[in-house]
Amino acid sequence: REKIQHLVLHPAFQPTIIAVIILNGLVIVAESYRPGNEVLLLLDTIIVWIFVVELILKVTGLGIKGYFSEAWNIFDFTIVALSLAFYNTPLVSVLRLIRVLRLIRMIPAIPALRKIIDSLMRSLPALTGILGLTTLIFSIYAIIGTTFFRGVLPDEFFGSFHSSLFTLLQVVTFESWASQVARPIIAEIPWAWFYFVSFIIIGALVILNLVVAVILDYLGH
Amino acid sequence: REKIQHLVLHPAFQPTIIAVIILNGLVIVAESYRPGNEVLLLLDTIIVWIFVVELILKVTGLGIKGYFSEAWNIFDFTIVALSLAFYNTPLVSVLRLIRVLRLIRMIPAIPALRKIIDSLMRSLPALTGILGLTTLIFSIYAIIGTTFFRGVLPDEFFGSFHSSLFTLLQVVTFESWASQVARPIIAEIPWAWFYFVSFIIIGALVILNLVVAVILDYLGH
Amino acid sequence: REKIQHLVLHPAFQPTIIAVIILNGLVIVAESYRPGNEVLLLLDTIIVWIFVVELILKVTGLGIKGYFSEAWNIFDFTIVALSLAFYNTPLVSVLRLIRVLRLIRMIPAIPALRKIIDSLMRSLPALTGILGLTTLIFSIYAIIGTTFFRGVLPDEFFGSFHSSLFTLLQVVTFESWASQVARPIIAEIPWAWFYFVSFIIIGALVILNLVVAVILDYLGH
Amino acid sequence: REKIQHLVLHPAFQPTIIAVIILNGLVIVAESYRPGNEVLLLLDTIIVWIFVVELILKVTGLGIKGYFSEAWNIFDFTIVALSLAFYNTPLVSVLRLIRVLRLIRMIPAIPALRKIIDSLMRSLPALTGILGLTTLIFSIYAIIGTTFFRGVLPDEFFGSFHSSLFTLLQVVTFESWASQVARPIIAEIPWAWFYFVSFIIIGALVILNLVVAVILDYLGH
Ligand code: NA
Ligand code: NA
Repeated sequence: REKIQHLVLHPAFQPTIIAVIILNGLVIVAESYRPGNEVLLLLDTIIVWIFVVELILKVTGLGIKGYFSEAWNIFDFTIVALSLAFYNTPLVSVLRLIRVLRLIRMIPAIPALRKIIDSLMRSLPALTGILGLTTLIFSIYAIIGTTFFRGVLPDEFFGSFHSSLFTLLQVVTFESWASQVARPIIAEIPWAWFYFVSFIIIGALVILNLVVAVILDYLGH
Repeated sequence: REKIQHLVLHPAFQPTIIAVIILNGLVIVAESYRPGNEVLLLLDTIIVWIFVVELILKVTGLGIKGYFSEAWNIFDFTIVALSLAFYNTPLVSVLRLIRVLRLIRMIPAIPALRKIIDSLMRSLPALTGILGLTTLIFSIYAIIGTTFFRGVLPDEFFGSFHSSLFTLLQVVTFESWASQVARPIIAEIPWAWFYFVSFIIIGALVILNLVVAVILDYLGH
Repeated sequence: REKIQHLVLHPAFQPTIIAVIILNGLVIVAESYRPGNEVLLLLDTIIVWIFVVELILKVTGLGIKGYFSEAWNIFDFTIVALSLAFYNTPLVSVLRLIRVLRLIRMIPAIPALRKIIDSLMRSLPALTGILGLTTLIFSIYAIIGTTFFRGVLPDEFFGSFHSSLFTLLQVVTFESWASQVARPIIAEIPWAWFYFVSFIIIGALVILNLVVAVILDYLGH
Repeated sequence: REKIQHLVLHPAFQPTIIAVIILNGLVIVAESYRPGNEVLLLLDTIIVWIFVVELILKVTGLGIKGYFSEAWNIFDFTIVALSLAFYNTPLVSVLRLIRVLRLIRMIPAIPALRKIIDSLMRSLPALTGILGLTTLIFSIYAIIGTTFFRGVLPDEFFGSFHSSLFTLLQVVTFESWASQVARPIIAEIPWAWFYFVSFIIIGALVILNLVVAVILDYLGH
């Protein structure tokens, strides 16, 4: 076991795994250009088995307790386990999705990426208030939109609560908000201009607050 | 009265009210999917009465003076009073709007949301200058647009002062500003390119100033 | 003369002038709804004469040297002089433009607005480098676009150097850059994707630098 | 040689070169309006020879070692060498491209521009992590998009890995992301809303992180 521990902690071990994950990405991209290519499928199988061997080495080397004490390792384990579980599934969609998700292993593998996600996670509690306010504002505007603009257009933009939420996301990103969403509705319901203008201003203010909260949180670290 | 005060200040009182407001939101969303459902309408009636009871308890517990000394309570009182006043109005639109506005009670109920709105309000005085400048620039460009581009397009974008203001909001959010607004007008009035380019640059500068003012105001706190 | 000086420096003098400028704005907006209304035209004439009297009072009160020693007063003087010079011009366009420009007098009249413009002017020298770089990048991309994409589309987006500059402003504001500008050109000239992607990235970087430069300049004050 | 050194370091030497580069830009712009004009072509030839003479003077004055010890000089040398090498190429496209690239000499010539690029370069190492994460997220979403939406639309938006990458750049800049990309795909594949909404949110978060990283890096200098 000491030998395995030595191997796992060897300075060349982690870079090798990163190289295999990058190769994994290249194989998946190549397969999108030549679907069903046998060399690529073989490479993919080999990569899955390398990942399995890596996992066994790490669990043995660090001990079950030592390995699972870190959240990122549980994440890693789940992806490799799923890769193995759906190795021969007839559900092609699931197979493809898991193959792609294997690339997310890059995040725990490379310290720089890990650090970004970790600091993002740590700043989430500071954002609870502003995220709650965003949810509230979107909900209120979605309900108002659904109630009053439902019948106006051919049921596309404000046809139901979830359609309205999607439309409001479109409006808050300023995507065709006036030309395609607001103008046709205002042509039918004149007071709708107040609905859209107030949402644009409040939405911009809330997003500005979110940005400032993130910046201040970083400056605090 | 001491008993009521005890009840109102009980640590479980406020969370219960928040839960009822969230339930209120879920009922309104559910009703948008099943309009006229009797169970949902009954729940809505119960919620209004819970709010009325909560209000009476709070006013009694804190005393009329104590209750109305806080601005958020006046806001709260107005919404509940309106809910009761328009409880049986034949004006369906008003009824629906007030039902939705009840959800804004979430803001005074949850301290985190309250804090954001409070700090937003406190930063407003620092923004008077820049908001005044924004109004001035929008007004000047709206008047110039109305004066010179009124006849150009089929009266849609710059047909009147208020249409021009709406169009300028569309332009400053970069929404189809070139493809749909500026290019057709420039095709007729060549110097209009200067109108749009200067407005884009000045508008971006003023908004950048607004953002910086908000950030500096936060850093000052 | 001392009496006039006393009048000009009276605490009610400046607010009166601001009220007249705001009234001026309301008159111009009202006239856009009722063009040629005689009451509004009369009001406009009265306002011009109030401005002329204000100017004479100020020049007399502060002395010619004292008055013209401040840059904003020269600006103020020019606008009022132009208003008077083109008071009875047959060129309706010039007349209308100068009438609107009178509203810019709001900036020197209100200290808060003046402060914003002054601090903007003071931050300009710090931005020379980044503005020069922006000009250089726009010029290089405009020349490349004009050279290689001139013949591709019906002469609209990259038909000449100045058209290209306008198109690049549209692209850098992300307005229909892919759907209307880049995709049709890439369909004809495949390597054009590199032109647009590099411009989007470099443009975003340069604008980010501009924003950071403005923020740092403010923090420095 | 000392005389040449004296000339190269003369305070009027560098401004003269900057003036020639600006003249170069004006000639190229003028030529885009009057292609094939002989005066302009002659001017262009003269400018190339001025640049060659400048180069020889600088290399002689500073010595080969002294000249090539600075990275910007190598950059400068390459451009002038290419200008000379492709001086009489029959490949008109290459000729035109190199003519434009000569304008980039403005950057090493003007210290303010040089400083911006230098500080941008210095901040690149601090951005490796976030740029790697951006690449990873774009790759994963591009592969998922290519796998599941390839057949949906007439092969335009997600037809291949590189098309998907371009479409995702369009989506992350909020350009017609809902109206033209997301809505038609969601109409066919309902769960696609999650793909687009998650990409919009993650993309915005990552770009916000990038902006914050750049600002913090500047504040650190
Ligand atoms: Na946009
Ligand atoms: Na658009």
